Amino acid sequence: MAASSLLRSLTRVSRAPATSFYHRAPCSPFSAAAADAAGRGLAGLGPTAKGEKARVVVLGTGWAGSRLMKDLDTSGYDVVCVSPRNHMVFTPLLASTCVGTLEFRSVAEPLARIQPAVSKSPGSYFLLARCTGVDPDAHTIDCETVTEGEKDTLEPWKFKVSYDKLVFGCGAEASTFGIRGVTEHATFLREVHHAQEIRRKLLLNLMLSDVPGISEDEKRRLLHCVVVGGGPTGVEFSGELSDFIVRDVKQRYSHVKDYVHVTLIEANEVLSSFDVRLRQYAINQLVKSGVKLVRGIVKDVHPDKLILDNGEEVPYGLLVWSTGVGASSFVKSLPFPKSPGGRIGVDEWLRVPSVPDVFAIGDCSGFLESTGKEVLPALAQVAERQGKYLAALLNHVLKAGGGHANSKVEVDLGPKFVYKHLGSMATVGRHKALVDLRQSKDSKGVSIAGFASWFIWRSAYLTRVVSWRNRLYVAINWMTTMIFGRDISRI
Amino acid sequence: MAASSLLRSLTRVSRAPATSFYHRAPCSPFSAAAADAAGRGLAGLGPTAKGEKARVVVLGTGWAGSRLMKDLDTSGYDVVCVSPRNHMVFTPLLASTCVGTLEFRSVAEPLARIQPAVSKSPGSYFLLARCTGVDPDAHTIDCETVTEGEKDTLEPWKFKVSYDKLVFGCGAEASTFGIRGVTEHATFLREVHHAQEIRRKLLLNLMLSDVPGISEDEKRRLLHCVVVGGGPTGVEFSGELSDFIVRDVKQRYSHVKDYVHVTLIEANEVLSSFDVRLRQYAINQLVKSGVKLVRGIVKDVHPDKLILDNGEEVPYGLLVWSTGVGASSFVKSLPFPKSPGGRIGVDEWLRVPSVPDVFAIGDCSGFLESTGKEVLPALAQVAERQGKYLAALLNHVLKAGGGHANSKVEVDLGPKFVYKHLGSMATVGRHKALVDLRQSKDSKGVSIAGFASWFIWRSAYLTRVVSWRNRLYVAINWMTTMIFGRDISRI
Repeated sequence: MAASSLLRSLTRVSRAPATSFYHRAPCSPFSAAAADAAGRGLAGLGPTAKGEKARVVVLGTGWAGSRLMKDLDTSGYDVVCVSPRNHMVFTPLLASTCVGTLEFRSVAEPLARIQPAVSKSPGSYFLLARCTGVDPDAHTIDCETVTEGEKDTLEPWKFKVSYDKLVFGCGAEASTFGIRGVTEHATFLREVHHAQEIRRKLLLNLMLSDVPGISEDEKRRLLHCVVVGGGPTGVEFSGELSDFIVRDVKQRYSHVKDYVHVTLIEANEVLSSFDVRLRQYAINQLVKSGVKLVRGIVKDVHPDKLILDNGEEVPYGLLVWSTGVGASSFVKSLPFPKSPGGRIGVDEWLRVPSVPDVFAIGDCSGFLESTGKEVLPALAQVAERQGKYLAALLNHVLKAGGGHANSKVEVDLGPKFVYKHLGSMATVGRHKALVDLRQSKDSKGVSIAGFASWFIWRSAYLTRVVSWRNRLYVAINWMTTMIFGRDISRI
Repeated sequence: MAASSLLRSLTRVSRAPATSFYHRAPCSPFSAAAADAAGRGLAGLGPTAKGEKARVVVLGTGWAGSRLMKDLDTSGYDVVCVSPRNHMVFTPLLASTCVGTLEFRSVAEPLARIQPAVSKSPGSYFLLARCTGVDPDAHTIDCETVTEGEKDTLEPWKFKVSYDKLVFGCGAEASTFGIRGVTEHATFLREVHHAQEIRRKLLLNLMLSDVPGISEDEKRRLLHCVVVGGGPTGVEFSGELSDFIVRDVKQRYSHVKDYVHVTLIEANEVLSSFDVRLRQYAINQLVKSGVKLVRGIVKDVHPDKLILDNGEEVPYGLLVWSTGVGASSFVKSLPFPKSPGGRIGVDEWLRVPSVPDVFAIGDCSGFLESTGKEVLPALAQVAERQGKYLAALLNHVLKAGGGHANSKVEVDLGPKFVYKHLGSMATVGRHKALVDLRQSKDSKGVSIAGFASWFIWRSAYLTRVVSWRNRLYVAINWMTTMIFGRDISRI
């Protein structure tokens, strides 16, 4: 078989120093050979031997993968993470960074801080790359490096990584529903660079609208912020934005303050997953803080305006798109059975049942129809719990002697993964938040709002931020924002 | 005269609400008319009337302009700042942000925090634009907005601003000495976005060099950081970089730590303006911390290597260019007499003597040969002192009734500007700095080095950071760097 002959030629991990013509080479577990287009000796990490640590390959650095890697037993496992991003984003606080309430670095946690083994342990790595394919029979994945930023001098190259256990935690993609212009003109709110883009654009538009020579219409357009999607992200961002306008823009941009407006467009209900009373509370709060709520469907997006299905034109200066997520094209391309909705199908132990040693967690995975369970919502809470569960399962397997690929050891996997919803939270501007503690839409539970729930929300998130460094920075950012206002330098 | 007829058609500042077809317009001092290519009614800020505040127009938000605006008496002056950047960069600490010792926002001070009038006072503005020309007879400047980031929807437009007093504080440009490839491939270290670029590239190269399939040579190249220019900036950056390597890279990137190298290339003496003993101390410290010092002249810069004049090729992954500054093309284009070196020539009161009501401060200005004084070095210290001096002078003129353009009031300008050098400082890595307190190269003075001078250096800079917010953040950044190490997330 081609794949396995290829595999045999993969460079083996070696701890003996390599010799080199050019210099005294330090210990390197990698092949020094560059990727060869002919496939001969394609560089990579070869399979582990029996006496060595088993290798868990994790795709992605989101909530699911990061939590998994944090908990993995690195005394028996080498951790190899393949991701185009070297940090986890603390997504619930991302909306706050767009307007300067929090700083970007306060919500980004480098993987090396979550799992120090990737930077210290000789067989553990963080690899800045994208996975492009899987060969479950050979127990290898194909990868390609992400070299943007070094494009001038370095072409992306391909390599292979052998795995003992493979975990998909590569997330989902923002849904655009095939609407023209969304990808080109709207900004999503999923990565730190999205928040940076929003902040830069917001400050740019505030400044440009203050320059003589701009028309009234242009000024009004530039300062019209439109948010599409009334889920928690859209509502939180609208709330932050209107608080920014009330608290900071009125003072810092007093010349143009009356031109700034926020519109939230939603096709159905705002915060549809929340209790009806909370929903009403949220709507009242948003309207009170000046957010205009529009029920409508976006049909078309132009660089400076969007068109609703009733033909209405909405000029905008900033467009944020947060209408939820769907299966990514990479996930769609994988030759595995899928869950309803097109995610990677898993059984109740989060295994991909058709292939040994492969698992999927977080937004990229969903229960197979055969499990009789519903696909879980794409929430940080779900992903985090799955990462934690799978780490425990893999550590258990390791202890039972089944850490390596194709292990013949029979291991009792223990309890199935059961998701218990701990409640939903959304903040709506200053000192106001919703906490929905019901376990499902039909059950009853406490639902609170106002200052008390805002405090719970803030504290709950603060203690979940992974490192002490970032907990400290979030607290300091909140404090300085209260005292000095938000930072408005456009850097 | 064409200029004055244009001027008459400039929209006058008005506090009466304008009416509009579209909406209730708030008070706007600006013309609603868009810039007209025919020149008819070109928008802008027209001349001030006698009963109104006089208008000081300041070009630039560097040390000179920012200090000037901070001290201007806004009870009698409107401040209009024209600059492509809405913040001042605390340049002495910029090198520290490249490797994550400090955060970017800690060294950027928004102008609105330095001089709140620009965002609150009805006649004061910050205008995100570049000045393109001056008409001293008409007392107007020509400007063009900086719309990068909104290019898709907004073309830059031109406008005019009338001034009562005009201050050039628009700085200098990095010198490239006409060497091919510098602008394209090297990074300067003058703006926050330069530091961001360096940090992103440094982290990218560290990560890419850890991916299987890279050749030994490529790895060594990617991790070779070359600094050209042995002045304080180049030395400080080299020191920060080697400290980053010793303290953070060895731990966080243990796989590749032996491949990272720093080379400092200087054509003449390192820190040539410093006392010879300090210079020797700096060289010893740099060499001890692993920086390779090369005496040489760069002839040519390619994307992945530079060529020295002796023909030697130096492959690099990161190239930082800090060989000093020279007159910018804008300054060269101005129809004013120049100082030796091509800067805007000023007299001893920092006036541009050929034209009334025009001043120049900071790196863009220099004493005219006729003053018999030497052109002052391009230092933050000089610029800050000039800004402070000129603010006092203009406030004095205002009090004497000479605030408006072409004032006939005879004002005694008071003492001439005298620069007293307070000493030069440069830090060389961890807990090591040089403080040269001599007033000139030939005089004698205390010159200290080591921990004590490092402490003086840090404290001196900390108390000079303009706002309390940033003083706090610098202190917190230093503290968390000491406790947790530097932040390595690449966002």
